[in-house]
Amino acid sequence: MHLVTYRTAAGSSVGVLDADSVIAVRDLVPGAPDDMISVIEAGDALLAQLAGALKGASASARTPLATAELLCPIPQPGKVICLGLNYALHAKEGGNAVPDYPAFFIRTNSSLVAPNAPVLRPKVSDKLDYECELTIVIGKRGHDIPEAEALSYVYGYTILNDVSVRDYQRKTTQWSAGKNFDGTGPLGPVIATADSLPAGADGLGIRTRLNGEVMQDSVTSDMVFKTARTVALMSEIMTLNPGDVIATGTPSGVGYARKPPVFMKHGDVVEIEIDGIGILRNPVVDA
Amino acid sequence: MHLVTYRTAAGSSVGVLDADSVIAVRDLVPGAPDDMISVIEAGDALLAQLAGALKGASASARTPLATAELLCPIPQPGKVICLGLNYALHAKEGGNAVPDYPAFFIRTNSSLVAPNAPVLRPKVSDKLDYECELTIVIGKRGHDIPEAEALSYVYGYTILNDVSVRDYQRKTTQWSAGKNFDGTGPLGPVIATADSLPAGADGLGIRTRLNGEVMQDSVTSDMVFKTARTVALMSEIMTLNPGDVIATGTPSGVGYARKPPVFMKHGDVVEIEIDGIGILRNPVVDA
Repeated sequence: MHLVTYRTAAGSSVGVLDADSVIAVRDLVPGAPDDMISVIEAGDALLAQLAGALKGASASARTPLATAELLCPIPQPGKVICLGLNYALHAKEGGNAVPDYPAFFIRTNSSLVAPNAPVLRPKVSDKLDYECELTIVIGKRGHDIPEAEALSYVYGYTILNDVSVRDYQRKTTQWSAGKNFDGTGPLGPVIATADSLPAGADGLGIRTRLNGEVMQDSVTSDMVFKTARTVALMSEIMTLNPGDVIATGTPSGVGYARKPPVFMKHGDVVEIEIDGIGILRNPVVDA
Repeated sequence: MHLVTYRTAAGSSVGVLDADSVIAVRDLVPGAPDDMISVIEAGDALLAQLAGALKGASASARTPLATAELLCPIPQPGKVICLGLNYALHAKEGGNAVPDYPAFFIRTNSSLVAPNAPVLRPKVSDKLDYECELTIVIGKRGHDIPEAEALSYVYGYTILNDVSVRDYQRKTTQWSAGKNFDGTGPLGPVIATADSLPAGADGLGIRTRLNGEVMQDSVTSDMVFKTARTVALMSEIMTLNPGDVIATGTPSGVGYARKPPVFMKHGDVVEIEIDGIGILRNPVVDA
């Protein structure tokens, strides 16, 4: 099932995507919650109710996808954890060793961008780069989660375009500056529930297109730290809560490592596609 | 003025500290907000009202400090930005160059600890270290704030004990792992409003005591990036909002750089003191 957070004239809601329309969760299951973190907390029981109700959904309950403004599926995640160097070829293209422990940083929510909303190229840099990333959505509170149980803590998967301001990323040893500019974290468009994808979202094609041209093209099975191990390792440090997200790093093909380098500019359109999840599309505009 | 967030049998409130008692903001100014971010947003006008009302506060409105459970003054900051290597001597003790741009990382709120609550020594490491840090509390929303105006965006100052799990901090190039363990970010005990301190909180004595022994002892004027410059630089990247906090790094004397190294263990008591702000005291317990 694909879930979205969307806004219409009536306000924002959580909905189920069904072909080219969205149906509000609360219209399918009376009394159901209407924000994504609460929907996630309601877990499999609500998903089963939604699947049953979807078959009988009336045409009048449907909002055409074209008229629904998609928001980030989780507008305010409790944590946005981002792994780096998690594909061997990408680590090498940046001159880094393949890690034996996941390097990660944290994004603040002020960096997040809704599907279709503009990515902002900051005034202070012209080194704006894309990064396609499979993103784990946590379903249950957990700490010290054993790797063998970790997939049961995963509600589903979404996409992060981990847009990076490369010169700021490298001003110091810490990447956070280049990863936290306002308007640089497109997240969405949907949460694909875990039952709709292969275990751990393994083996999915993942790619970036910039103005239609394929720039990154890989498969999630090339991840160094896969979903279960990533969840286990992060939960050793931090209690994970429903709606927390973990972006799992990007494959090779990023702009700064190309010869010549390619950076995003005003007027570009960047698309991240992960098979079975969808396409996260954003225009780029000068801030 | 010193503001706290505290809990009594009646629930949690924002209060003004007055000698050894706390008076709820809503008892001093009827209709005033009762959460810290809203109090911060109410700005100088509310502070002036509070100062006026404090003089006539009745004994019955006072809660003895000893019976009020202090919480983090901002229980859920929108962002917790933490500078590293911001005192020249500390950079050198870790073998790092003094930076020409502030290295920073982000803490998640799940790492924060209330005053007097236990710092948790994780099962996976015995390399738990203290770091005393002057912490800026943002008062007004701003982006691209000029350095000359930056202090007008500062509501006040608090203290972060940026407790670090040193082996995890150094597992990769990114410090985030060692800085985000549950129960490792004591914050508080108060917000000292900007008008109660020297401009930029400059020239304040700052020290750490571990079981009563002074381990760090410096002065905030040794900061490489001082308050105004720090706010200006961070706001170039991120829109800063009321209640966001920026910890400004720690001086020399941390445990791992001592000979022999000193790490915190179950039963220890760690105190951070900054002149004009207060003492942030926490016991250490095994998780």
